[in-house]
Amino acid sequence: MAQPVLDFWFDFASTYSYPSAMRIRPLAEAAGVDIRFRPFLLGPIFKAQGWETSPFNLYPAKGRHMWRDLERLCTDLSLPFVRPDPFPQNSLLAARVALAVPETKREDICRAIFRVQFAEGRRIDQPDTMGTILTGLDIDPAALLAAARSDAIKDSLRAATTEAQRLGIFGAPTFITAGSELFWGNDRLERALAWAQCGV
Amino acid sequence: MAQPVLDFWFDFASTYSYPSAMRIRPLAEAAGVDIRFRPFLLGPIFKAQGWETSPFNLYPAKGRHMWRDLERLCTDLSLPFVRPDPFPQNSLLAARVALAVPETKREDICRAIFRVQFAEGRRIDQPDTMGTILTGLDIDPAALLAAARSDAIKDSLRAATTEAQRLGIFGAPTFITAGSELFWGNDRLERALAWAQCGV
Repeated sequence: MAQPVLDFWFDFASTYSYPSAMRIRPLAEAAGVDIRFRPFLLGPIFKAQGWETSPFNLYPAKGRHMWRDLERLCTDLSLPFVRPDPFPQNSLLAARVALAVPETKREDICRAIFRVQFAEGRRIDQPDTMGTILTGLDIDPAALLAAARSDAIKDSLRAATTEAQRLGIFGAPTFITAGSELFWGNDRLERALAWAQCGV
Repeated sequence: MAQPVLDFWFDFASTYSYPSAMRIRPLAEAAGVDIRFRPFLLGPIFKAQGWETSPFNLYPAKGRHMWRDLERLCTDLSLPFVRPDPFPQNSLLAARVALAVPETKREDICRAIFRVQFAEGRRIDQPDTMGTILTGLDIDPAALLAAARSDAIKDSLRAATTEAQRLGIFGAPTFITAGSELFWGNDRLERALAWAQCGV
């Protein structure tokens, strides 16, 4: 029988998606669940509800808690953490790159993008930074960056974002089982895996 | 040496405050932490950031997830759950009642108020409902309801809400240690207790 599947929806600029991206692989293997990394853009979803930037910027008390909470969380997980500047980063290029790489390398590239942003404090909207990551994973940066700018990949990212919105996604990370059960937030990852295990 | 203290800030209309109110006592005892039940009103804090109702009503996708998530959570915790109608309930009377009872009975009254709302589906803005709860806890309802409407109690609730805002509270439940470490959300209760244990 095929393994159950859990979709991991995220935006590269999303702060709580970072610990999820770093935690999900070993947890999924222990649970016997396949994970699909699904990058999308939160920006259009936020805009549709009247937000021009992250709610963590719009609501300063909420933002202050998030930064402190994320710092505590990363300490607990022994994950390095540097606060991105600016925040949120523009995640368009990163999302296109992640969709343009072969599926077998997608997870690695996604983790590498999260790592340069949240562990090394670098900007993810720079082609040079993407190039360095690609080279590190034995992917030709020039060809891949050209593919990332193709209409096919642009359409693919737009379609992912439209699908996310249709599925009821309003934030990231979001985990969705094959039976359309939706879990929002890094702190729901374990529960989502347990739900996926039941095959619903 | 005195036990460490953790302040548990909540609004009676807050959905995720219900599982916290039901979980906190045994967890706190196991951790050797004293809990102070701190009712306040989220309404004025939401209004100050431009919200006229709960964000779960303002943002429907977020609201749909919350109701489903709370249902799953209560099932996991074997807590009965009925969706309040209307939502949010007007929590003014309940908060005043909770502040007017003697401190030794405050926790019990708070849990009883959460229970009638979220387990029995009753409205908490009705003096009769409060009266039934008070009688059940051997408190004279007529005298207590009169005290709950006194200027002293009204001032005390206003002061609590002002203090909550000053402390950076933007949602409920919120847990704050003696060292001002702030944790937001039912899913942060265990982490807040562990932090409080360290005495900071």
